[in-house]
Amino acid sequence: MLSKAQNKYIRSLTQQKYRKEYQVFLAEGDKIAREWLSEATKIEMIVGLQHWIDAHAPLINKHPEASVHIVDEQTLASISALQTPNQVLLVVHMPGTPLALPEKEWCFALDDIQDPGNMGTIIRIADWFGVKHIVCSPGCVDVYNSKVVQAAMGSHLRVMIHTAELPVFFKEVNMPVLAATLHGSNVYQLPKQLYGILVLGNESKGVSEVVMQLATQKITIPRKGGAESLNAGVSAGILCALLVAC
Amino acid sequence: MLSKAQNKYIRSLTQQKYRKEYQVFLAEGDKIAREWLSEATKIEMIVGLQHWIDAHAPLINKHPEASVHIVDEQTLASISALQTPNQVLLVVHMPGTPLALPEKEWCFALDDIQDPGNMGTIIRIADWFGVKHIVCSPGCVDVYNSKVVQAAMGSHLRVMIHTAELPVFFKEVNMPVLAATLHGSNVYQLPKQLYGILVLGNESKGVSEVVMQLATQKITIPRKGGAESLNAGVSAGILCALLVAC
Repeated sequence: MLSKAQNKYIRSLTQQKYRKEYQVFLAEGDKIAREWLSEATKIEMIVGLQHWIDAHAPLINKHPEASVHIVDEQTLASISALQTPNQVLLVVHMPGTPLALPEKEWCFALDDIQDPGNMGTIIRIADWFGVKHIVCSPGCVDVYNSKVVQAAMGSHLRVMIHTAELPVFFKEVNMPVLAATLHGSNVYQLPKQLYGILVLGNESKGVSEVVMQLATQKITIPRKGGAESLNAGVSAGILCALLVAC
Repeated sequence: MLSKAQNKYIRSLTQQKYRKEYQVFLAEGDKIAREWLSEATKIEMIVGLQHWIDAHAPLINKHPEASVHIVDEQTLASISALQTPNQVLLVVHMPGTPLALPEKEWCFALDDIQDPGNMGTIIRIADWFGVKHIVCSPGCVDVYNSKVVQAAMGSHLRVMIHTAELPVFFKEVNMPVLAATLHGSNVYQLPKQLYGILVLGNESKGVSEVVMQLATQKITIPRKGGAESLNAGVSAGILCALLVAC
């Protein structure tokens, strides 16, 4: 059961303002809920259909800190941020600000990435390639936006996500800064590097002038055909495959 | 002006059934409309706000075959498939089935790709890397779905898109078939190949059994971290960067 107040509370979490105030966010759906519950994350609420709750007792028991609520499909639909609600919804405590900074390793710096799908995809790519740190400029989409959580498929759990003014971050970590642009050096011809900061810019404006001026190198994925650009998530994947995985 | 019948006709084109019947599709928004108008594609209708139509006379004049309709924002919103209608909407004639088949070159074969965003992204990636042919299994999402057209950003114009049963296509073109899977050979260790068919599978089920059995080689982008998989569009980009662009 959910009280009216709890129902309202959960619905409020589709807004960044309330996520920030309460320091929690929503993770929805069978697969993503299982990902989050299987880790030692602090969960506040588990709201699910009877059969889902029954079938996942061992996972749920790992979280004595969480309150468990059995609801019907109609109630789940009323609190879900998904078009097709999927059996279960979690209210998860945000991890605190990461204490460690990247050190002689590859990391991402995101300069005002706006699209939640791109942001989630980039977090998932970082996780796939073992990139442990992502730093987001304050103008990026909130990484706890439901669509980001959905697209990242649980990868938030294994990637440390910082928010910082990028110039300040560059100074703190003191590593080469490689900014992706349409008019840089051919990424295939870079001398081998073992670590650095990969900067990806806003979907329509690219990397900002201020950040670009701090780049050690401007890099480009060479184009053979006619498309004007590559999507930010795809670029992130290609740069990982060419620089991080090699 | 748009008549009621024209308004209804355009709205019907959000459904595949009617796109197929009339052999036309919608391309929306300033940027995408400019892409389509600048090519020698046959356009049926150009529906736009007065200021957009005025500002793009030279492009519009390249298409005497098209009827031009000036509408207000409210009318544009009533026919748009976008959440935020953007100044102009085109009704475009579908190109005919491509006559040429790929020959000793890289191409994509898509086995039931379902997500319109992924499909559009893959068409855009093919265009970026100069991949000229994509063959879609009959179970793929319609490549003229509005969301696909949106995500592909005009790349339909430079990529030939076939629909075929993949086993039949493999026989016809007679090239190596490289299927992307989570348990194949490390793509970094493949001997250099100059051409082949890159097969990408359905977002949840992967490449189907029937198609997998026809693969010359199963290939995998090696994982270093914890994510369970990579998104289909990102995988397509990485495979192009590692195999096609090299």
